[in-house]
Amino acid sequence: MTNTPFVHPINVTWGDCDPARIAYTARLPWFALDAINAWWEHHFDGMGWFQLEIDHNIGTPFVNLSMDFRSPVTPRHKLLCETYPTRLGDKSITFGMKARQDGVLCFEGSFTCVFTIADQFKSQPAPDTLRKVIEPLVRQQ
Amino acid sequence: MTNTPFVHPINVTWGDCDPARIAYTARLPWFALDAINAWWEHHFDGMGWFQLEIDHNIGTPFVNLSMDFRSPVTPRHKLLCETYPTRLGDKSITFGMKARQDGVLCFEGSFTCVFTIADQFKSQPAPDTLRKVIEPLVRQQ
Amino acid sequence: MTNTPFVHPINVTWGDCDPARIAYTARLPWFALDAINAWWEHHFDGMGWFQLEIDHNIGTPFVNLSMDFRSPVTPRHKLLCETYPTRLGDKSITFGMKARQDGVLCFEGSFTCVFTIADQFKSQPAPDTLRKVIEPLVRQQ
Amino acid sequence: MTNTPFVHPINVTWGDCDPARIAYTARLPWFALDAINAWWEHHFDGMGWFQLEIDHNIGTPFVNLSMDFRSPVTPRHKLLCETYPTRLGDKSITFGMKARQDGVLCFEGSFTCVFTIADQFKSQPAPDTLRKVIEPLVRQQ
Repeated sequence: MTNTPFVHPINVTWGDCDPARIAYTARLPWFALDAINAWWEHHFDGMGWFQLEIDHNIGTPFVNLSMDFRSPVTPRHKLLCETYPTRLGDKSITFGMKARQDGVLCFEGSFTCVFTIADQFKSQPAPDTLRKVIEPLVRQQ
Repeated sequence: MTNTPFVHPINVTWGDCDPARIAYTARLPWFALDAINAWWEHHFDGMGWFQLEIDHNIGTPFVNLSMDFRSPVTPRHKLLCETYPTRLGDKSITFGMKARQDGVLCFEGSFTCVFTIADQFKSQPAPDTLRKVIEPLVRQQ
Repeated sequence: MTNTPFVHPINVTWGDCDPARIAYTARLPWFALDAINAWWEHHFDGMGWFQLEIDHNIGTPFVNLSMDFRSPVTPRHKLLCETYPTRLGDKSITFGMKARQDGVLCFEGSFTCVFTIADQFKSQPAPDTLRKVIEPLVRQQ
Repeated sequence: MTNTPFVHPINVTWGDCDPARIAYTARLPWFALDAINAWWEHHFDGMGWFQLEIDHNIGTPFVNLSMDFRSPVTPRHKLLCETYPTRLGDKSITFGMKARQDGVLCFEGSFTCVFTIADQFKSQPAPDTLRKVIEPLVRQQ
């Protein structure tokens, strides 16, 4: 067990920016979801949403997202998305995120997903194989 | 003054969907922002974020967004995004949104922007020319 | 039979633009594909790629695209994408496109797709129900 | 001078895929442009399109792109985009690309950009500081 937080780096580029020369707001939830998918890949041996759904019939659709934008995101620095579960419920998981560039907090957010039997689109309890990996990683913020 | 709510229709397509055959979650904030931009265009004579910023030096960057996903979005029906201001503060505006397909609520959300002097990236009070159009449109939900 | 060309209008916005204040190049193939999907919807009673694939087991994956960019695309005018088949082969279809803003040609392109049995990812001849609608619409440019 | 080709890896994920479970076609030009931007960053000390334009007033807008799609792109493997200049003209540069997953060619393409004085949107000859780095890297395919 490690205390090193999981951080997903994103290379923000020209194509992510709008005429204000900062990343377009609608790109930021996309980056956040990329970071959450990367969190799954990192903790489950390369298994992201695609493999969870196609190979294991486990879906984790989002039911809520909430984001606060603190400082503009630019191509000047990597965007470092610290990503961690803040709560593992019976049938849901909530992720927290703090995304920073050059030490400055750019956005933070909370993202809640439910577990489903993918091919039935029906909710299910968090599968045990996932639960035992996730539980020790839960932290408050 | 009209009581007809502003509704922005979105044609959801194949390219918006993920392998679960529903619109990918990160597309939904993008749709929501399209609807808010369309709200500006509709109430200000075709003037969206681009014209506000480039022609009038007014920016409205987002400081918060929060969305609840109630039902999957698919290409089967138009996505009708009812969009309305819920609060006009001194220096900020909050939008509410209810997005429906075939009468079913798919997502709802709240989105807060601040007014800025665009080329200085500095906050400013809501300009009067905007305020007088927006104020009568504010409603609770 | 009509000689009116099919034209798909796109509302280009702030979020499509990069810091040069014009639509980011990688958005243009996305717009072009939106127009081709809209061409299917228009000529086949609302049936786009999603319905073709899910309801009729017909896929039309792209094998080639080629685009010439003639003039920048901006949010100042609708982008009008004139879209038409230029060739219907035994197992493939090629679309031409001319996209204009305010009468100015912004880009033109050619896009070739093959017909597949979707769930087998195997090529097939153009189904007759499609062929008889498409054939009279083919034109050279 | 090195003979090692420049290869930009892309992590293809769930959100890039359409209901056919492969990357949506319109994502592939986006990936290709990401790879070309990464080529600039790699060969010019972290300077991508954003820095070229904002810090050095050099634009490189695209005038043409052409892509052949050989094999579907999936989240099963990294997408390795081999990227290289194939021609450096007086005022233009052409890039070739071969994108592979697990040794299989997924797409190849050709992309031509012109050099501009960014704030004038006027074409210019390839600046010497760029030309001397690019010239030795040009190869036929």
